[in-house]
Amino acid sequence: MTSEIITIGDEIIIGQVIDTNSAFIATSLNEAGIEVLKITSVPDKKESITGALNIARKTADIIIMTGGLGPTGDDITKITLAGYFKSHLVLNKDVLEHIKKLISHLPGKISERNMKQAELPDNCKIIINNYGSASGMWFEDKGKIFISLPGVSYEMNAMITNDIIPALKERFSLPAIIHKTILISGVAESIMADKIKDWEEGLPPMLKLAYLPSPGILRLRISGTGISREKVRKEIEQQSDKLISLIGDDVFGYDDDILEETVGKLLVKRKQTVAVAESCTGGKISELITSVAGSSLYFKGSVIAYSNEIKTGILGVSEDTIENHGAVSEEVVRAMAVNIRKIYNTDYAVATSGIAGPTGGTSKKPVGTTWICVASEDKVIARKYNLGKQRGRNILKASISSLNMLRKLILNN
Amino acid sequence: MTSEIITIGDEIIIGQVIDTNSAFIATSLNEAGIEVLKITSVPDKKESITGALNIARKTADIIIMTGGLGPTGDDITKITLAGYFKSHLVLNKDVLEHIKKLISHLPGKISERNMKQAELPDNCKIIINNYGSASGMWFEDKGKIFISLPGVSYEMNAMITNDIIPALKERFSLPAIIHKTILISGVAESIMADKIKDWEEGLPPMLKLAYLPSPGILRLRISGTGISREKVRKEIEQQSDKLISLIGDDVFGYDDDILEETVGKLLVKRKQTVAVAESCTGGKISELITSVAGSSLYFKGSVIAYSNEIKTGILGVSEDTIENHGAVSEEVVRAMAVNIRKIYNTDYAVATSGIAGPTGGTSKKPVGTTWICVASEDKVIARKYNLGKQRGRNILKASISSLNMLRKLILNN
Repeated sequence: MTSEIITIGDEIIIGQVIDTNSAFIATSLNEAGIEVLKITSVPDKKESITGALNIARKTADIIIMTGGLGPTGDDITKITLAGYFKSHLVLNKDVLEHIKKLISHLPGKISERNMKQAELPDNCKIIINNYGSASGMWFEDKGKIFISLPGVSYEMNAMITNDIIPALKERFSLPAIIHKTILISGVAESIMADKIKDWEEGLPPMLKLAYLPSPGILRLRISGTGISREKVRKEIEQQSDKLISLIGDDVFGYDDDILEETVGKLLVKRKQTVAVAESCTGGKISELITSVAGSSLYFKGSVIAYSNEIKTGILGVSEDTIENHGAVSEEVVRAMAVNIRKIYNTDYAVATSGIAGPTGGTSKKPVGTTWICVASEDKVIARKYNLGKQRGRNILKASISSLNMLRKLILNN
Repeated sequence: MTSEIITIGDEIIIGQVIDTNSAFIATSLNEAGIEVLKITSVPDKKESITGALNIARKTADIIIMTGGLGPTGDDITKITLAGYFKSHLVLNKDVLEHIKKLISHLPGKISERNMKQAELPDNCKIIINNYGSASGMWFEDKGKIFISLPGVSYEMNAMITNDIIPALKERFSLPAIIHKTILISGVAESIMADKIKDWEEGLPPMLKLAYLPSPGILRLRISGTGISREKVRKEIEQQSDKLISLIGDDVFGYDDDILEETVGKLLVKRKQTVAVAESCTGGKISELITSVAGSSLYFKGSVIAYSNEIKTGILGVSEDTIENHGAVSEEVVRAMAVNIRKIYNTDYAVATSGIAGPTGGTSKKPVGTTWICVASEDKVIARKYNLGKQRGRNILKASISSLNMLRKLILNN
């Protein structure tokens, strides 16, 4: 089973927007055992879209398109597909009801533009978009499948995951491709590669390993392919068990696990709470924690102390400590963690102080120098990191590392 | 003059890596007045590469490829192109010298792999890669130009900017393509479309408008094409001036401006400071503010008050106010803003309280209900928003809307 992806939009073609949709779709198709032959991006022009469809259908069984389904005049995918598949546009009552519900919180009547979003080709299956007004469309023509989805990523992602992939799996008998991803924090890629070298070399031919590094997190994906799903699954489980015991407690989860969710689950289970005192991370740790639904169960809040005045005035770090050791020091970050835990009356606390850059570095404390401290009632652990020169990256790395230190503290408590 | 971009690599096709190269190349070509017709990504397979070349040369004058030029066995672009253009690979002494210099800090002799990097087709112009060992290649065949560049972004970027674009400009007399993007916060796409309908319909044929919405922000891009650069620029300026006066103070910037940077610049200019009290946004506003280098000049910090205990204990909101009006209310968010401004001793304050979801909504206050308040010494402005059901999106929208309310408050002060 083969596929092609076509992303539609002038903004991609002129380079204003990076096409992230096709990577998401390609990953999803691959994991389902559907080979991707090509990815094409075309502008919002009728001939460009139909030209790409004509080329794609020569080699691919399934063609997935995104983009060009908005309510404004520059979006022409729907009308182009209606012409290509010789459809009539008809008002779809279910979609109209859905759109009315979507905009029910807005004042006034439904606009003509929104009404038009409910007019859809009469010879395709409609895929309802739970998060927006642009519906997905599934056409079939001379043995080929053509699927058109909105370009807004979270709308498209939900439809791929919840509608398209399940429907394709039900329709075709696909070869068994199984992935298992081991999630690690706190270990660099090159150190990990040395550590697991022997294990990697001993992998059976049906399994492949990929390193997927991102700031603060390393994902090791084991992929297996075979006829027997059971056999592939068994082999992956055996090998991943070996790998996990090699790596130890730097493994924080599997597959789609998210570090901040893992930490959240540990706290919910123990009915414990956490507070954060952030300097260099500027709110990023709190943002990660509260990105998890239900985090109000265990997260009481934070103090962002971006100026020393707040470190002393609100967090009670003594002026002498800052004077003697500098704001980026073990002493300051320890005081921040110990004090926020008391002020917010929580079981755990996390604190950061570092030089995010691009300025503020010195030869002794270059940009990227970051102190992180985690504290419970009877343990206070501080650690220094060198996180590199790029501001955005070192803020993210510091935040991820903080959550990982917290995870380990909770587990060892 | 038309072009196509072909990015080559299995990692793109399986979705492991997001193709950022083509956006960079597309932007560069566009700014030089070369239209991009299509972007294609293909795997490291001979037939996929030659297939894409055969399709591209039918319509495009210039074809730019990236990727597949590394020293390892899976990289086959060079050998494929050599075959496609009936070349012989010959050792290029200049490139060999360059590679020797590049690796002179490494111990040992030049490896066979590196030697092979200096073997290049004999019927192309070689473009030296100042940052790596993979050379660029410029072929010409039956009136079409084919350029192959390495996939490593910073190597490729330098070659596009320093070698390819200047060479193309010298070779062809190119038309002018100019873009201007107007950045707006606080107005929905459909409302904006109605508001500027007459203006849009009156645009001269040389100009095109595109709507580029993202959570909390709407970008309107005007693109102009013509022979005379001066004429296009003038027309865009005239039309964008009209558009801006139509929209008013919801416009926060142009082109690559970022809202949090715009707010930062206003504060730096006025030598003023800000503090934040966040409930539902959980740190996102602080994170956006501190993502800007130099934000310590105007940002003192925040209190994240995720539990009512912190709203009363640290932010001094009275228990009665919470009891009588609920935590998500105008009264509470006003008290949060007024109090954080005093506690942190700043010129401005921002506060949020809302129901981020997915749970916690009621019929009177559904998920997405969010109160935002901004305060200065003599003004306190609170506003209620309905930001929809998706947690991540409504947190982001609330944060962007907060920054926009702050921007307006600063401007009106």
